[in-house]
Amino acid sequence: MELFFSPMACSLASRIVLYEVGADARFTQVDGKAKRTLDGRDYWQINAMGQVPALRTLEGWLLTENAAVLQYLAEAWPQAGLLPAEADARARVRQWLAFIATELHKAVFVPLLDSKASADVKAYSMARAALRLGVLEAHLQRHEHLEGSYGIADIYLAVVLNWAPYAGVNLADWPAVKAFHRRIGQRDAVARALREEFALYQEEQRLRAA
Amino acid sequence: MELFFSPMACSLASRIVLYEVGADARFTQVDGKAKRTLDGRDYWQINAMGQVPALRTLEGWLLTENAAVLQYLAEAWPQAGLLPAEADARARVRQWLAFIATELHKAVFVPLLDSKASADVKAYSMARAALRLGVLEAHLQRHEHLEGSYGIADIYLAVVLNWAPYAGVNLADWPAVKAFHRRIGQRDAVARALREEFALYQEEQRLRAA
Repeated sequence: MELFFSPMACSLASRIVLYEVGADARFTQVDGKAKRTLDGRDYWQINAMGQVPALRTLEGWLLTENAAVLQYLAEAWPQAGLLPAEADARARVRQWLAFIATELHKAVFVPLLDSKASADVKAYSMARAALRLGVLEAHLQRHEHLEGSYGIADIYLAVVLNWAPYAGVNLADWPAVKAFHRRIGQRDAVARALREEFALYQEEQRLRAA
Repeated sequence: MELFFSPMACSLASRIVLYEVGADARFTQVDGKAKRTLDGRDYWQINAMGQVPALRTLEGWLLTENAAVLQYLAEAWPQAGLLPAEADARARVRQWLAFIATELHKAVFVPLLDSKASADVKAYSMARAALRLGVLEAHLQRHEHLEGSYGIADIYLAVVLNWAPYAGVNLADWPAVKAFHRRIGQRDAVARALREEFALYQEEQRLRAA
């Protein structure tokens, strides 16, 4: 398998899952601005949306969209237990994956992190944060994980929450969310992936500034 | 089961699936502005996000998020064949569901249809339309359906494309997408659901104007 990623992007969630399940994969870094892989390939030719993650699967076809990639990996390594076996619980995991992808990632964080978005666009997105983080706060005050035990929805959420300081979102206003982020971040696979990608992110920023 | 819906919202996709599979369900209309059901309940108390669809499942618990609801229904009625049985094809259906939800529904259409969004916000969203509809166009030039045979991703996409004229998106610029929309709209279940909800939508608009 080959995971196309950009440092600290949502593809970090797929790296964490690969570490959790102990899968062997090649990690190919993509410059998300230039849309080129670090080994010189035109990324538009790999993924027509130009986004990460994209996963070259075990069978050689390409899978995109974070929620789909995370489910694929969790199903391919069921023994890791990152997706519940029971149908109703699995439906609720999908609910959380969709919530994180649509309500947090796309509706709030993408515009807040976009250097080309105007102040007006950022204000529109920031106005959406309180309801969404409030729904999460209420849930995480009563639950250790989004659904059942630790799994792919928790991993995706933890990765999105990494972006909060860069987006001007202060997690101290949502203490259960903040505690969740810290808790998930203490897992070995999560801490390792974050440490590695943060170093790559700093290097990418250094090269861009140079 | 009980489906909470607003006329012509993305919950229309769940109604279509219910018609396709022949399931018995109660349809409860939600005023998306007042956040009340038409039978007088406070919708915030039912779904903390205030959004449709929400599905009171066969077992009585509440499932939200369109992509999750559609998969739940398709899995509960597998004989309808709205979700492929094979794992890789299923992963690609999830990829399309995530693409439609994040890239089209949330990133493009929600701000374009939001009467409170500024011209700047609408321009930011409109600038995202061409890449996304272009990716769809290229795919639908070569495929009759998003993945394999007719299924839940096609239904979700057809519902989102209903919004194009109201959002100022001219589907004539993407002829394969436009032909897909017309083709899916000719199915009995789709045409019936659209006809019924469009009447409810017009009635809702009439009452709001009065």
